[in-house]
Amino acid sequence: MEEISSKHNPRIKSLVRLHTSRGRQQQNRIAIFGSREIVRALQVGVEADGIFVCSKLLRQGVLAQVQELVPNFAEVGVSISEELFSKVSFGDRGDGIVMTAIRPNQSLELLAESCAAKTPLLAVVESIEKPGNLGAILRSADGAGIDGVIVADPLTDWFHPNTIRSSLATCFSVNGCVANSDTVQQWLVDNDFQIVAASLDGASDFFACDLTGKTAIVLGNEANGLSSRWQRSNVLAARLPMLGLADSLNVSAAAAVMFYEARRQRML
Amino acid sequence: MEEISSKHNPRIKSLVRLHTSRGRQQQNRIAIFGSREIVRALQVGVEADGIFVCSKLLRQGVLAQVQELVPNFAEVGVSISEELFSKVSFGDRGDGIVMTAIRPNQSLELLAESCAAKTPLLAVVESIEKPGNLGAILRSADGAGIDGVIVADPLTDWFHPNTIRSSLATCFSVNGCVANSDTVQQWLVDNDFQIVAASLDGASDFFACDLTGKTAIVLGNEANGLSSRWQRSNVLAARLPMLGLADSLNVSAAAAVMFYEARRQRML
Repeated sequence: MEEISSKHNPRIKSLVRLHTSRGRQQQNRIAIFGSREIVRALQVGVEADGIFVCSKLLRQGVLAQVQELVPNFAEVGVSISEELFSKVSFGDRGDGIVMTAIRPNQSLELLAESCAAKTPLLAVVESIEKPGNLGAILRSADGAGIDGVIVADPLTDWFHPNTIRSSLATCFSVNGCVANSDTVQQWLVDNDFQIVAASLDGASDFFACDLTGKTAIVLGNEANGLSSRWQRSNVLAARLPMLGLADSLNVSAAAAVMFYEARRQRML
Repeated sequence: MEEISSKHNPRIKSLVRLHTSRGRQQQNRIAIFGSREIVRALQVGVEADGIFVCSKLLRQGVLAQVQELVPNFAEVGVSISEELFSKVSFGDRGDGIVMTAIRPNQSLELLAESCAAKTPLLAVVESIEKPGNLGAILRSADGAGIDGVIVADPLTDWFHPNTIRSSLATCFSVNGCVANSDTVQQWLVDNDFQIVAASLDGASDFFACDLTGKTAIVLGNEANGLSSRWQRSNVLAARLPMLGLADSLNVSAAAAVMFYEARRQRML
């Protein structure tokens, strides 16, 4: 394996830039931190263009597992020192391996294609701010078998290190894309989706909605909910019962409840 | 208002000790950080024995609101400087007010009394580690109208500052208690509860369970799930469908789905 020891090495510098959303955008690449996340990403077909290994920190067996999943490991693998690893790792993810990859392709067109044969159940999340929430939503969408997740007017990155982590790497397997809200809404209308918008004071009881047809469940920002563009006659405003002190659920809890209610109805 | 300017003042020293679980235990008191959390706690009847105010940092209107909710404000209110406030505040909750209170009374007996007249729906969460998860679970329990939450074999504190925050202060309104797992299980059996344990490989489909009777939904630790004591013939092991890459949901997402499914069945 090639060894890099200088923090001025161009590959190290470009890796460090992948910590930020801006850096990921500029390079159209992403970085995956942590052996569990990397193995899962590889298992669902993400292709590594760099794997930075600090053998001293790596758990036994991880390297062999990664090498098996990466046929061109000899080309992309790099050995780095513990000191250098601490510079390139993110947060507390210090288990000795970081992988870089071209940002996976995502678009509304690809999403549409992937679920053309089904009666799709989609989720739209508008302007979610916390990567941890987006990750939790993707994990629940994965579990409930949602056909696609559209991040509208994003305030955080689908491939933010904390999104990757809290999604348990399901961000690599869930079909989805990022788009602006107006485009998304128009696309849903044009494609005859029933649009069900989570709304604290919605007129419809969510559990009374029939979610077995072509449906999009729409959820909004943590603090402010959905933008007003979703208040229109062809959007069903639906509420979950709120029987206690708080007037809302955490957005990722609301998403989980709604996704699984749709799944439950579709399994009947 | 009394003014305190020294960090050696005994009230300041005892407040700082309330940052830790150990300190809260030793004093049998808790601290609530942040104006939103404090107002909600007061609204549901928590009695302040200390309110530390840094006027410079306080949003307009908050002090008046708090004073209205605290009849003995003249006795318990203390003014502190910005410098001192930074020493007593927790994390980034820097909006100029901290409240202390005797730890609210909680016990299995009180919980039993409070739901004696109903067909109770309880939740048991065993050895949850992250305060943020416990808080999110309490917030969902509040929303779904769960009659009581029992924290079994706790690894975090019901009144940890991050639990208070992520629960949106519903930790003060949700009926509940902390107990050891064996006691809880025996109590549920003695009181004829149907026990439904969330289990990744459970034999029963959770959505096929009748949750309209006297029921306890039991969820386990983030990483390890439930302890083996819940694998017994009078416990129904139930699973949620997992249709994607990950083999589990985040525990607070699973809790939300399960609580709301029970509520849905009970509203039919």
